[in-house]
Amino acid sequence: MELLKNLRWRYATKRFDTSKKVSTNDLAKLKEAIQLSVSSYGLQLYKVLIIQDMELREELKPVSWNQNQITEASHLIVFCNYTDVNSFDIEEFIQTTSDIRGIDYEKLKGYGDFINSKLDEKSDDQKRNWLERQPYIALANLLMASAELKIDACPMEGFESEKYNEILGLNESGLNACVIAAIGYRSPEDQSHKFPKIRKPADKLFEEIEHFVTTPVI
Amino acid sequence: MELLKNLRWRYATKRFDTSKKVSTNDLAKLKEAIQLSVSSYGLQLYKVLIIQDMELREELKPVSWNQNQITEASHLIVFCNYTDVNSFDIEEFIQTTSDIRGIDYEKLKGYGDFINSKLDEKSDDQKRNWLERQPYIALANLLMASAELKIDACPMEGFESEKYNEILGLNESGLNACVIAAIGYRSPEDQSHKFPKIRKPADKLFEEIEHFVTTPVI
Repeated sequence: MELLKNLRWRYATKRFDTSKKVSTNDLAKLKEAIQLSVSSYGLQLYKVLIIQDMELREELKPVSWNQNQITEASHLIVFCNYTDVNSFDIEEFIQTTSDIRGIDYEKLKGYGDFINSKLDEKSDDQKRNWLERQPYIALANLLMASAELKIDACPMEGFESEKYNEILGLNESGLNACVIAAIGYRSPEDQSHKFPKIRKPADKLFEEIEHFVTTPVI
Repeated sequence: MELLKNLRWRYATKRFDTSKKVSTNDLAKLKEAIQLSVSSYGLQLYKVLIIQDMELREELKPVSWNQNQITEASHLIVFCNYTDVNSFDIEEFIQTTSDIRGIDYEKLKGYGDFINSKLDEKSDDQKRNWLERQPYIALANLLMASAELKIDACPMEGFESEKYNEILGLNESGLNACVIAAIGYRSPEDQSHKFPKIRKPADKLFEEIEHFVTTPVI
């Protein structure tokens, strides 16, 4: 199975070969994999920054726990969630649906109202948390697409999002740096791919419930 | 590219063929794809329930916005995040690392302390939100593995997690139903795969920063 093979191949690359760049052609494929990610209601309430500029990455490194990947990788990908969702976002989504599927906007309006009513049930905190979960699906898509293309990647949460927001001017755009990934090609110096993967054993991770008896055995 | 082909093939399946079941062999592959998901620090602080029992699913359906997928699919997958993380979880992870890599536990202890210190920086709310993001990566892995195996899937947030927690007895186990997915095979009645996918255009979703000038153009 292709995906399993790729998942076994990949690892969180710590040192990248600074001389190797991800090609424009491959980058286009990675972008399509991100674009095809599922999201709640299909709203895709995030923006993805693809950063090459080295000065900028030098500035981001100290607020990324000084990790080498920030500057050594070919590209730094920053997944930014919307900090809020409003009826304009829903309208835009309904308009896109109308355009792509050739369905009258008015016929889709009811679905937009439904989404709005469901979002209204969430508190501000719940909304924000919900917005911050969605980019993780896109991150996973990026990692799997990279692995198929034999592009190395390192997903990272070890950075100060407030500092990223300041440096990248995200606050003004209603965006928040949620999770990041460095992509490129492993350096021969990076030995960590030689270590076996650490994963929880299946019996701790899964519970199969074929016949439910009063309370599950977990 | 295999992954892109599979991502284009898949869609959020609304009606499943109740006569078709995902085989044990395929299920094992899906589980491995979930198990290989990346997670923060590699901690995998979630548990995945794989539910076949029909009575149980009938009970879950009304608290899942009455969606047909809950009972019509072959299996219902419930991704449950840990509601808290404590030093025991970190210890267990360090012990697993020690076992798998054959490294002395004492030599790894410093890394465990580092993780603990980083988690201590988070407030309870931040911790909870962080715990609730991780299963989304596993969800994405499940969706892509399913697509490669031509297994249909529907990721779902439309359910009442508190009710799931009660019905499945998750509270007592320190777990929370975070996100779910129905898997199986599409019913011929499900026409929604005929509609073109709705995705944001690339120029709205991406911002490539090759040369950063004072403030990014977003």
